Amino acid sequence: MEQEKTLNEILEEILELLQNKKYGKARDLLLKNNSVDIAEILEDIMGELDVEIAVIVFRTLPKNVSVEVFSYLPIEDQVAIINVITDKEVSYIMDELAFDDMIDVLEELPANVVDKILEKTPKDERKLINTFLNYPDTCAGSLMTPDYISLEKNMTVAEALAYIKKEGMDSETVYTCYVKDRGRTLLGIVSLRTLVIADDDLCISEFMHTDFISVNVYDDQEEVSDIFKKYGFLAVPVVDKENRLVGIITVDDILDVIEEETTEDFERMAGVIDSSDKEYLDMSVWHHVKNRIPWLFLLMCSYVITGGIIASFEDVLSKVISLVAYLPMLMGTGGNSGSQSATLIIRGMSLDEIDLSDFGKVMWKEIRVSTIVGIILSSLNFVRICWLDGQGSMIALTVCSSMLVIVIAAKVIGSMLPMLAKKVGIDPALMASPMIASLTDMVSVITYFLMASVLLGI
Amino acid sequence: MEQEKTLNEILEEILELLQNKKYGKARDLLLKNNSVDIAEILEDIMGELDVEIAVIVFRTLPKNVSVEVFSYLPIEDQVAIINVITDKEVSYIMDELAFDDMIDVLEELPANVVDKILEKTPKDERKLINTFLNYPDTCAGSLMTPDYISLEKNMTVAEALAYIKKEGMDSETVYTCYVKDRGRTLLGIVSLRTLVIADDDLCISEFMHTDFISVNVYDDQEEVSDIFKKYGFLAVPVVDKENRLVGIITVDDILDVIEEETTEDFERMAGVIDSSDKEYLDMSVWHHVKNRIPWLFLLMCSYVITGGIIASFEDVLSKVISLVAYLPMLMGTGGNSGSQSATLIIRGMSLDEIDLSDFGKVMWKEIRVSTIVGIILSSLNFVRICWLDGQGSMIALTVCSSMLVIVIAAKVIGSMLPMLAKKVGIDPALMASPMIASLTDMVSVITYFLMASVLLGI
Repeated sequence: MEQEKTLNEILEEILELLQNKKYGKARDLLLKNNSVDIAEILEDIMGELDVEIAVIVFRTLPKNVSVEVFSYLPIEDQVAIINVITDKEVSYIMDELAFDDMIDVLEELPANVVDKILEKTPKDERKLINTFLNYPDTCAGSLMTPDYISLEKNMTVAEALAYIKKEGMDSETVYTCYVKDRGRTLLGIVSLRTLVIADDDLCISEFMHTDFISVNVYDDQEEVSDIFKKYGFLAVPVVDKENRLVGIITVDDILDVIEEETTEDFERMAGVIDSSDKEYLDMSVWHHVKNRIPWLFLLMCSYVITGGIIASFEDVLSKVISLVAYLPMLMGTGGNSGSQSATLIIRGMSLDEIDLSDFGKVMWKEIRVSTIVGIILSSLNFVRICWLDGQGSMIALTVCSSMLVIVIAAKVIGSMLPMLAKKVGIDPALMASPMIASLTDMVSVITYFLMASVLLGI
Repeated sequence: MEQEKTLNEILEEILELLQNKKYGKARDLLLKNNSVDIAEILEDIMGELDVEIAVIVFRTLPKNVSVEVFSYLPIEDQVAIINVITDKEVSYIMDELAFDDMIDVLEELPANVVDKILEKTPKDERKLINTFLNYPDTCAGSLMTPDYISLEKNMTVAEALAYIKKEGMDSETVYTCYVKDRGRTLLGIVSLRTLVIADDDLCISEFMHTDFISVNVYDDQEEVSDIFKKYGFLAVPVVDKENRLVGIITVDDILDVIEEETTEDFERMAGVIDSSDKEYLDMSVWHHVKNRIPWLFLLMCSYVITGGIIASFEDVLSKVISLVAYLPMLMGTGGNSGSQSATLIIRGMSLDEIDLSDFGKVMWKEIRVSTIVGIILSSLNFVRICWLDGQGSMIALTVCSSMLVIVIAAKVIGSMLPMLAKKVGIDPALMASPMIASLTDMVSVITYFLMASVLLGI
């Protein structure tokens, strides 16, 4: 928190310096921070002033710092900078960036700009870049980097350490090293920790781990992040169909994946469709409208049915108009009960705590839980309706027995729907609150009016 | 996925072997897997059969494997094992466990068992353990381990590497080393990567990083995980009030924290209170009831007000009974619109993309978005009500103008409430769907009936 404040204060000072065109002083102030913080300040400058001024500041930074700062900027700011700086500056940055960061930038640039950049790269690297650009956005291939340390199995520890000393600077991580055969098949894994601890003249093949875990280049990023969570790795090797090592994924990139996947879950559970990675404030009003209208419209349509049901019970209603006053409570409690169950099941499934084979167990648990919850809420209501509202006991009985049925139905629907969705290959997160609420509203209305017709004899 | 299947098959086989009391064969089959997977299988055995049998299997494992497997078991299974095995076995496991894993187990054991274990530990370690046990559950102190590599600033690279070779085996991580002065104040940080790459006779103090970032022992775990996400660290040093280094936190523990915090957010947003770390299926029916009743009850109470409002408009209703058919749609759409905004804002704030100082910007954006969304939904409804339902245009106008007001109000409330909550120090996640839905339901009912009284002249 304290640190955050200081960053904001620095930003204020720098903005003032920039508005007075004191670029040198702004740079000196900026350089007192580490690259991650410089990137954050630069990002804020681009938000508060404009890209041109941010680029002027960016250009005043020493070359090595500027590349590091660049790598920490959000992708849209990177693209904005690339579009303004000279070709020479672009190719310097591209050369110096870590391979996976470069791919991320290239993916967002227009095709003609990418072509211009690729023209200047050696043929071998161009081919590699094109392969990487072709991996789908959310698969292991799009997260990996080809910059890793590969050792040979007949190297000694001393030779391996000497090799790392020579090659290590350009690698994404040196903490896990990979041993391949001539055909690029992965044979084993050696951690730098064991290398440092081992005797100098031991041979790599004698102590490398051969029961390593690897992912396929087309595995979904969610599966990859599950592996990191389960095993606590710092890096994981990525292999192609022929089991050849093509790259590695490091844990820092997984933190971003987890964040992205969680945001997607949250948004889907609230009925927001979002295909871009843009932040809330950076998104245009129209983009927000486009993200929110589809589900709102779809759910609204479901209320045509609910409305129709009510209309068909109009004579019941007109006879006991006071029934209407309890309708929102029944619908609301139904919706809330359903979302509780749906959220628990959705989260449980995404953490692999609940499996499709647990369907029976979940149902049985929800039926018991909802019966108890329903009885408690109904009893409280009965007292309230008779005493506080002064209604007849038959009306109270109608409301309360409906409440019990609705809570049970809502919890069963709420837990069942996400599991069924998973079964047929739809993201369970789409079956959360809004969807469940619409369905339980229908159930609530039907239950309530049927109960009324029967119990009140209308 | 393929791997998962194999694990399940292995489990089936092992269960069969165990039921036939072929423990030796079960162990051999088990030992073909790595420790993480053995732990998973053991966990399933405890679920499917019982603890006693799992302990028999656990005891057949070689000692070094058994400790590793133990460290990967969920805490409740660890406690179950501790309660069954002999004191000698307990102290062997406690000796061999990583310090932070040991603390996690001790925290869950009853006080008398802890005392018995501590009796046998040397006085110094006992003091350290007691300090660690006293850190609150969700602060940096409860995540850290005191097992790190500390170097001295006048060591050469060769000396440092030799020291790591000697001491490295017991450390949680050797990839970041810490340089302290006599008073245990942290002076700088050296990564193993730079050590391996550097010249042998360079002095540590010449190239250690002195602009490192540390966290305080009482910092909340959420702040700590934000630092890992921002900087991509593998480990972070933890200091006390006097700036003395007391431990380090490693990235693998942060993955667990992120998962825990996300689950908490999801649950709070669905109105579920959960103080335990238990999985859905492991939780008793009563525990589930206890977690869900409070919010359901609270929200139900809010409908007493909504019901009261409706009751006060009973004469309006009795005159135009067909108005009731549109009430669920208006309430539902209001609730859904509100949750969309609330979710986006809550997530935005938890990712630090939205700040309290953005209040004005957010309001202005939501007002514009909701006006457009409201106009689109209202127009579609107008057509539907006049044409499909065959209602008069004044009723259509009542419903549609209410819809516009309700959508705008819901989105403003939905975005405002989480920010206000944060301002006064309440978790914004509590202001999500259920809370927003109850509030917007009130607004919907009032708006709708007021519109009806005015437009229909009742």
